[in-house]
Amino acid sequence: MAFVLRQVDRLLLTFDSQVTAPTVSKGLSMTNSARFELFSFWRTSATYRVRVAFSLKGVTPKEHNVDLDTGEQRSEAFLKINPMGAIPALVDHGAGQSQTPLTQSQAILEFIEESFPTPALLPADAHGRARVRSLAAMLAADTHPLITPRVKKYLTATNGFDDAAWRAWQIHWFTTGLQALEQRLASEPGTGTFCHGNTPTIADICLASIIAVTRVFKIEVPGIPTVMRVMAACERIDAFAAADPGRQVGAPQA
Amino acid sequence: MAFVLRQVDRLLLTFDSQVTAPTVSKGLSMTNSARFELFSFWRTSATYRVRVAFSLKGVTPKEHNVDLDTGEQRSEAFLKINPMGAIPALVDHGAGQSQTPLTQSQAILEFIEESFPTPALLPADAHGRARVRSLAAMLAADTHPLITPRVKKYLTATNGFDDAAWRAWQIHWFTTGLQALEQRLASEPGTGTFCHGNTPTIADICLASIIAVTRVFKIEVPGIPTVMRVMAACERIDAFAAADPGRQVGAPQA
Repeated sequence: MAFVLRQVDRLLLTFDSQVTAPTVSKGLSMTNSARFELFSFWRTSATYRVRVAFSLKGVTPKEHNVDLDTGEQRSEAFLKINPMGAIPALVDHGAGQSQTPLTQSQAILEFIEESFPTPALLPADAHGRARVRSLAAMLAADTHPLITPRVKKYLTATNGFDDAAWRAWQIHWFTTGLQALEQRLASEPGTGTFCHGNTPTIADICLASIIAVTRVFKIEVPGIPTVMRVMAACERIDAFAAADPGRQVGAPQA
Repeated sequence: MAFVLRQVDRLLLTFDSQVTAPTVSKGLSMTNSARFELFSFWRTSATYRVRVAFSLKGVTPKEHNVDLDTGEQRSEAFLKINPMGAIPALVDHGAGQSQTPLTQSQAILEFIEESFPTPALLPADAHGRARVRSLAAMLAADTHPLITPRVKKYLTATNGFDDAAWRAWQIHWFTTGLQALEQRLASEPGTGTFCHGNTPTIADICLASIIAVTRVFKIEVPGIPTVMRVMAACERIDAFAAADPGRQVGAPQA
């Protein structure tokens, strides 16, 4: 934890004086890479999503691990960056940009899409975009918020959940969300190599983020062949493979 | 329930033959009104959001009450419309549009915003849009999915939740979500008369949708003066007042 706090402190010093002028200027990609700081945690599906989206756009934010297991998100150093104590938090050091961190993975994904339109992570047509956002929300809104540490904390402290009850809860909601997604992917005409058509979208990012977390927890959901086919297609893309939780700073050593 | 089913059946008959040609042509607004069917439930915050967004745009979809309390969302008639058995479901009868229903409130709000840009429900700048979407997600993703009937069903059946335990759970998550929103609204410079600036956005729609539901459940969350100030501003706008759960078809008579 001390190491991460040092990182955070250094960042505040480094960037305080250059809010209006990114210093790196070796072409667009490098400039954009120096522009963003992403505060994340190795196994959190919401930060996985942001990591993949940036990577697909060819932008590499400076990423900082905030150790949720030791409560570092509530440390003084991190609360200076994001008073809400939540990750992902994205600080934009671009010229003239607000230093208020961008938060909530779906909002950040839309921001990345608007800021770096190529390659597109949303379809060109309004119905297609609505479908992609809807598929994404089935996981990012209907599923993931149920499996978060704060929910575990409440159920453990207030309703006597033990490890077995929590694991049954996790399995139930991952299964419910992924099987519902399977039903749509297997039946709706929009599905292609990926959730929608033949290039990855925000829906694939959310799908992969949830499958990645089920693997961390060693949960295998049955009856989702289309979901797993799409996951395999995602994993053939470097941006997804490189975002794997096990490959991030802070992950347990294999 | 029988009445609603009749409505649904009639709709299928009415619209089957006119997929490619809306028949009303008394100006843009009327055409748009004939274009959409919204399947909703009187007290559901997600359908409240869609109702308000359409109303702010001056579009009136044909709305159908799907009685969640009697399980009508799993009826054969409704599953023909949305095989996922979920509301809100929006069917677009516009010329050349897919009949696959649009689902998930945030995806539908973005669709409405893209289809009817005026008045804008998202700010013009990317950071502003990210802030609005983030504030909205604090309620639509972090809060609302925890309080849904399917979560109640699981906790009741599997973990022995009684009415008191469920009510404590509801109060805890409404309080957590709304107090977190309060912290941001009270401290961030983007806040104005509304959550962001001085015109209503998607964030206000989500805020109002959650406050409306807390009222249905007679839950009063303490310590949220900024949230309640914004709610009052929303309620001075007809689109919000008319969307009140108590004023919808299917609501209990006062």
